[in-house]
This record gives sequence, structure tokens and C-alpha cells, in this order.
Amino acid sequence: MSKGKGNRRLVVIGGVAAGMSAAARARRLDPDLEIVAYERSGYVSYGSCGLPYLISLVVPEPEDLVVRTPEQFGKQGIETHTHHEVTSIDVSQQTVKVKDLDEGREFTVPYERLVVATGGVAVEPPMPGTDLEGVFSLRTVEDGIEVNRFLAENSPRRAVVIGAGYIGVEVAESFVERGLETTLLSRPAQVLAGFDPDMAIKMQTELERNGVKVSVDDTAQGIEGDSTGRVRAVVSSQGVYEADIVMIAAGVRAESGLAKEAGIELGTKGTIAVDEGMRTNVPGVFAAGDCAETYHLLLGEPSYLPLGTTANKQGRVAGTNAAGGNATFGGVVGTTITKAFGLGIAVTGLTEKKAGELGRPHATVTIEHGTRAHYYPSPGRIHIKLVWDPDTGTLLGAQIAGPVLEAKRIDLFAAAVHHGMTIEELQGLDLSYAPPFAPVWDPILVAARVAMKE
Amino acid sequence: MSKGKGNRRLVVIGGVAAGMSAAARARRLDPDLEIVAYERSGYVSYGSCGLPYLISLVVPEPEDLVVRTPEQFGKQGIETHTHHEVTSIDVSQQTVKVKDLDEGREFTVPYERLVVATGGVAVEPPMPGTDLEGVFSLRTVEDGIEVNRFLAENSPRRAVVIGAGYIGVEVAESFVERGLETTLLSRPAQVLAGFDPDMAIKMQTELERNGVKVSVDDTAQGIEGDSTGRVRAVVSSQGVYEADIVMIAAGVRAESGLAKEAGIELGTKGTIAVDEGMRTNVPGVFAAGDCAETYHLLLGEPSYLPLGTTANKQGRVAGTNAAGGNATFGGVVGTTITKAFGLGIAVTGLTEKKAGELGRPHATVTIEHGTRAHYYPSPGRIHIKLVWDPDTGTLLGAQIAGPVLEAKRIDLFAAAVHHGMTIEELQGLDLSYAPPFAPVWDPILVAARVAMKE
Repeated sequence: MSKGKGNRRLVVIGGVAAGMSAAARARRLDPDLEIVAYERSGYVSYGSCGLPYLISLVVPEPEDLVVRTPEQFGKQGIETHTHHEVTSIDVSQQTVKVKDLDEGREFTVPYERLVVATGGVAVEPPMPGTDLEGVFSLRTVEDGIEVNRFLAENSPRRAVVIGAGYIGVEVAESFVERGLETTLLSRPAQVLAGFDPDMAIKMQTELERNGVKVSVDDTAQGIEGDSTGRVRAVVSSQGVYEADIVMIAAGVRAESGLAKEAGIELGTKGTIAVDEGMRTNVPGVFAAGDCAETYHLLLGEPSYLPLGTTANKQGRVAGTNAAGGNATFGGVVGTTITKAFGLGIAVTGLTEKKAGELGRPHATVTIEHGTRAHYYPSPGRIHIKLVWDPDTGTLLGAQIAGPVLEAKRIDLFAAAVHHGMTIEELQGLDLSYAPPFAPVWDPILVAARVAMKE
Repeated sequence: MSKGKGNRRLVVIGGVAAGMSAAARARRLDPDLEIVAYERSGYVSYGSCGLPYLISLVVPEPEDLVVRTPEQFGKQGIETHTHHEVTSIDVSQQTVKVKDLDEGREFTVPYERLVVATGGVAVEPPMPGTDLEGVFSLRTVEDGIEVNRFLAENSPRRAVVIGAGYIGVEVAESFVERGLETTLLSRPAQVLAGFDPDMAIKMQTELERNGVKVSVDDTAQGIEGDSTGRVRAVVSSQGVYEADIVMIAAGVRAESGLAKEAGIELGTKGTIAVDEGMRTNVPGVFAAGDCAETYHLLLGEPSYLPLGTTANKQGRVAGTNAAGGNATFGGVVGTTITKAFGLGIAVTGLTEKKAGELGRPHATVTIEHGTRAHYYPSPGRIHIKLVWDPDTGTLLGAQIAGPVLEAKRIDLFAAAVHHGMTIEELQGLDLSYAPPFAPVWDPILVAARVAMKE
């Protein structure tokens, strides 16, 4: 332990998933540690993945997203400040400079241990008009509140969502739920670029079936406003889309500027580089969540996959180690899931596309199958795509599209990919069967069996 | 290949799941093989697990349960006879004696290969009155038709179900759906004896919440009839239950009499003993499905677990090998699932009870957790019980009770148990997360994490 001014103090920068997980975990392991968390926005410990559902009103109030308030953290002995931005880190002095955004004053806080959990920021495509009234992105609770206020006050009719990753898709669904004529622009030639095109098309079809106008291979080039400075249209490579509200969902990048300026080493795609204990290259400084890199077990190298569940896990590991414990983050296999309307879609491991890019030998098969015994009322059919190594039979990845809840079956594939199961081993699994749950040959076994034939 | 009269002929005894799977598989592998199947009842290739849903009218017509008719099999070159009972097997002559139940005539058929798929029969508790009018068991389509005819013609008011295994539970639900006052008697001190009592109680509660009168530790001792020979009451160790209809669901035993008389070796609990290729001790004779034993990977020995999915898999293996191929059945880990009303319940691997009986070191933990992000509308809470080896951390078994479809999550545990994963490995899995599917910490990860703390 160092003997500086910040002795026995853990400072946490960023109070959402990773930051507050780290703080809570450190508190549990070390009751004597002083723990202070600074969050730039007005909310801590909230489910940012729920923001699209705030817009759709599935989640009625912004406060519903919050797991614990600063007051509740305070009672656990975690001093938590909202509207406080850390403006710089001095790793040699072991201090952070903090700005109280309400009061305007700045002050310096010494630390013994530091967890950087600054999160991610919405990528802003380089084009004019992103600052017009009615143009939004969706990262914080305040973003969600502002969208809902704009919807309430302006009753827009036409929405354009720029970007068709999972947040874009979820927001498009939410806009439709709010009665908006919605257009979804995707720069790639498909929605959900993390999926293979033959699976992503099922989501595109589902969106279109529910009234979303989807335009792929279509790059937004600028946003036009009217004379009052309010958004009027989106100009893209394929056309001009009238818009009363625009959501930019062009992806997320790591908010690593603070760390970089402090001399903390960066990793892939501008993330903060970490080891399996979420340690940065600076002793005593940890990073976790959407600002940090994530070890990908199938790629065998760090990657950037900003997801709430990973942020929570990484925060827990960082908090453990910051409190003097010894935890490791086991890495990810790239499992992602989302839904829109009646379709759930999920992926784990490598897609066919990714395996091809990596030059890895791969074979694929896609099956369509019922999800219940043939005589039992069914929510619909499921599509399963498997990607495996034809030399060893090892499963490399899987994708599912089907009735919403069926997509959760991806977890079995996540476990299989994680543990290097072969398609033969997959086919031999003793999966559960009863008519209300599955056909007598579970679709997963059918997929494995068809793969075996190849 | 033998050179007897039955050269190039495969005879299949029993035409439901295992038998017709074997026939269909053999046909696919060997287009020249003569294949003849004999089925005692009037239906082949039907989903017997769907029979309770025929009573509840979720399945409207008996024919809905049928996958393929004898005519359809005929077009595939599989000669299929219903109402034909095989009355004896002569393994030295390689012949079976067959009785045409409609015509009354008997004849002898030579075979080169034989698949015995005689299935299981309902256990009839030794007590008076089981032959009264209005007393049923439920194994064949005809059984289901007779129950429905009795319900239609007699409009019974009170039902008693004897036996609270999964068929008893499903029938109790079906009787309630048909408007009957239903009593469910369980000889053990719990329903669903394949589960631990602390999980089974959740099903008991759900049944009671929906109007089923459940009486545990209550052994039926006799059934009383009125002067017309129709059922009037069930007398049990705990009382007398008035009944206008009675379902005996006291379990299933292997229908192995024919095999035994032919000198084919029997295995555990009166099943036909088989190797991993579903071969009996007699060359050229295979057995599969509810009449055969099933290798249990966790017990490391054969067991009796008559289930539709296993029957189909075993039939496929038997058919492959009967056609000269080389397939093996990989065994089971005891995965079972069922539902009643709003509760799904599932088990895989060893229960606490079973681990105790086997004298295996074990630790357990049970968690209750939300099934969606806390702010997302949820179908309810899930209960997960883990059983693991405290010395190695290896998962031995899991049980789930919760909103119906959540029980299907058991498949992940089935894979984990099958592959000897530890609770630490389980905790490290990259499971899917989005608010409509799971909380940010999936309940499975929570269960593993809590187990880790023990």
C-alpha cells in the first residue's frame, strides 16, 4: 500500500454499470476503504440498455432504470457525487482533478486506487447538422428524458434513425411504438452488422413488416434544419428523408481521453488496455466497462464489445482487485441478443463473415425448425445458423433468429463455444423435452445433426 | 449377414417413437432392406407426450398427434401394420409370431434384424377396482380417446389422479382445464419425486393455487364402484375421495415380457439390457425406447428414464445399426421438464436427494431471482437450485422452477453437467443479456456466483 495522501481511498470515475459495480464490490471486501465515485451525469447505477424502452414507454419513468441512488450508496459508505466530472488524472501524484458541474468549482482528490469507468460515447458521424434541435443520441438517462420531452412537446411525425446496430434497431421499434413514421438507415448493406446477412435479413423483414422503412447501404451525409434551427431532413447517399426527429445510433466508442492524457496505455480501438485483472499499465489504476478492452476468447486477443453485462462483470473484477483481492475476468465469446417486435435475434462466437475475415477454416449450416411439438401451439419457427471448424468439428459460433424468447437459447451455444464443444458433442446433449417447450428433437440438436451430415 | 428366410428383412416390434425412428433411419441408410413394423394399437408414430394435451383440448384431434400414418410409411417402403401384436420371438429361428388383432389369425415372420421397441406400460398399483368403468391410464392414443369419450358422455364432476409424477401433474392440469374438481394423490411426501422437495413444493403450490387438491404421503388402496360398475370413490391411506373419473398415473415400467420369454437378457428395473449401440445380447436384435435401459452418464450405469426424446434418439441408433451402420447413443444426464398452469419446472443431473442416496459429496444452493432487467415487464421470478461437488467444484445437477418458458434454461445446465463444468466455469460464461431477456446478471450466473461463495 502506498503512503500518499490518498491512502486507503478508492476513487471511481464514472458511476454507471462498471463503476458502481466496482465500488459496491470493493466496499463488500474492505469495509474500511474510503470509496468515492464521481459521475458526470445526474444519475448513477442505471440500466443504460433500458433507454430504448424508456422511449417506448415500456419503462414508464427514468427513475425506474436506477438500481441504487447516490443516497443508497451513501448508506453503504460509498460517497457518490453526480454532476461531478473528473477533468484530469495525475498518476504520478495519484490525484484526480474534479469539477463540480453545478457549483463550477474544481478540486483535487488524492487516491490510492483508481477505477476508470468512464464508459463509452455515441459515435458522431462527421457531417453537418448533428447539433440541430431534434437530433439526439442515447447514452444517458438525460438523453432519454430529452427525447421523451421533445416527443411530448413537438409531436413529431417522422423519425429517422441513423445506424442499424442493436441500439438503432431498438430505438426504431420504440419510435414505431410511439406512433412515428420511422426510417432506419444502415451504412452497411444489412442491419445488425454483427450478424451474417442471411440472419440479419430476418430482423430487417420484421422491422419492415411492422412499418419501419429500412434503407441499407445508405450513408447519412448531413442533417438539414429549418430556419428555427430545428431538424427537417436527413440527407444520405441514397436520398433525402424528411425528419421531425433524428436519432444518431452510429455506434459507441470508448471514452478514454482522460486516461490517454494521463499516460495510461490504450489498447484496441481507443480502449484502455487492461490485463485479465482489469489492471491498466499504471499500478493501482484499473479500468472497466465500455471504456476498456475486452478479451475475446475466440479471437484470442482484446476486442471492443461494449455491453452492460460485461461492464458489470469487469467492474466487479476491478473492484475486487482494487480492494486488494484477486479476481480475473474470463473474457467473452461475443454473445449478443436483441429483439424488435416479434423477433428475437442472438449471436455468439464467430459469424461466417468474421471467420472468413480471419481466414479460419469454417463450414456453416442454417436450419429452420418448429419450436414446439408439432401438435402443440407454437410461437413460430426458429432459424439457427452454426459455424464450425470442418477439420476438428469444433463449434465456432451460432446465430439464432425466431420468436422473441427463443433467442435466449443462444446461451447453450455460448457455453458450447466457450468450452470448445464439437458439433458431435452438441448433438449428444441430453436437452429437455416436453411438448410445451420443444419438439421431440430440439432445434439445437437438429442443427447439430444437420451439421454432422456436412 | 445371415442366410435365413428373413434375409434382408428388418422387423420392428412397436410403432411409436423408438420403433418408427428405427424404421425410418434404416430405410434412409439401406434402400434395399425390407422393413416391416408391427404395432398393437391403432396408431403409429405419434407423440405420446402430447396425450395430456388431448384431454385438455389444447390438441383438438387425436390424429394431430400423429407424425406419419402407416400409409405414409408405406410410401417410403416401410410396411406398417397396426392392430398387429407380436406374441413371441424365436431368436434361434430368427422369427416372430404375429397376431392380426382384427382378423384373429396368427402367422410367423422371419427376420434378419429385429428392433424391439415395445415401449412401456402404465404401472397398475395392486389394488381392487382398477377395472371399473371410469378408471383410466394414459399410454396410447386410444386411451386418450376413451378418456375424452367418457368426459363427453358422462360429464363427470370430480376427478382423482393417482400418482403425481409428471404425467399425473399434466393430467391434473388437463382435468382442471376441462372444469373438473381434481384431486391429485402422491404416495411420496411430495409431488414430482424426481425433484428435491424444496423445488417440487413450488409445483404443488401452483397446482393448489389453480384449484387442484393435492394430497401427499397418501397411498391409494382401492377404487370403489357403484352398483353399475362405475367408479364412485378412491380409498387411500388418508381418506376417501369421491370420484366420477380416475386416472392412474403411477409410473411406467418397461414392456419387456416378450424379450424376456425369448431369452433376451434383461437389465435394470426389468428393462431390456443394451450396449451403447442399442444391441441386446442376441446378435441382430436391438432394443430402444421405453422398453430399454438408458445409460446415465452421472450414475455411470444403466438406468430407466422413459422419455420421448430418448426413445427417438435410441431408435435412430438402433435403426442405424440394424441397417449395418455404426452409431452409438451417448447416454443421458436425466434431463426432464414439465409445466402446469403458469409454472415450468425442470431438472438435470443429480438432485440433492439422489446425491445423498449415492453417498456422493455434495453442496447445494438455491436462489430466487428476477427473469428480466428490473425495470422491464417480467413474467415472474425464477428459482434455481444447484448441486455440486464441493471438492472439485464440478456441477452435479440443477433444478429450475419459474415462469413456464424459463424452465427451458435447464438445457444450459444439462450441457454443463454433461461436460463436467465447474461452478466457477459456469460463472465465467458469456451469457446473453438485453433487458427483454434477462437481468444484467443472468440468474444462472447469479446461482453460480452464490455457489462460489459457499
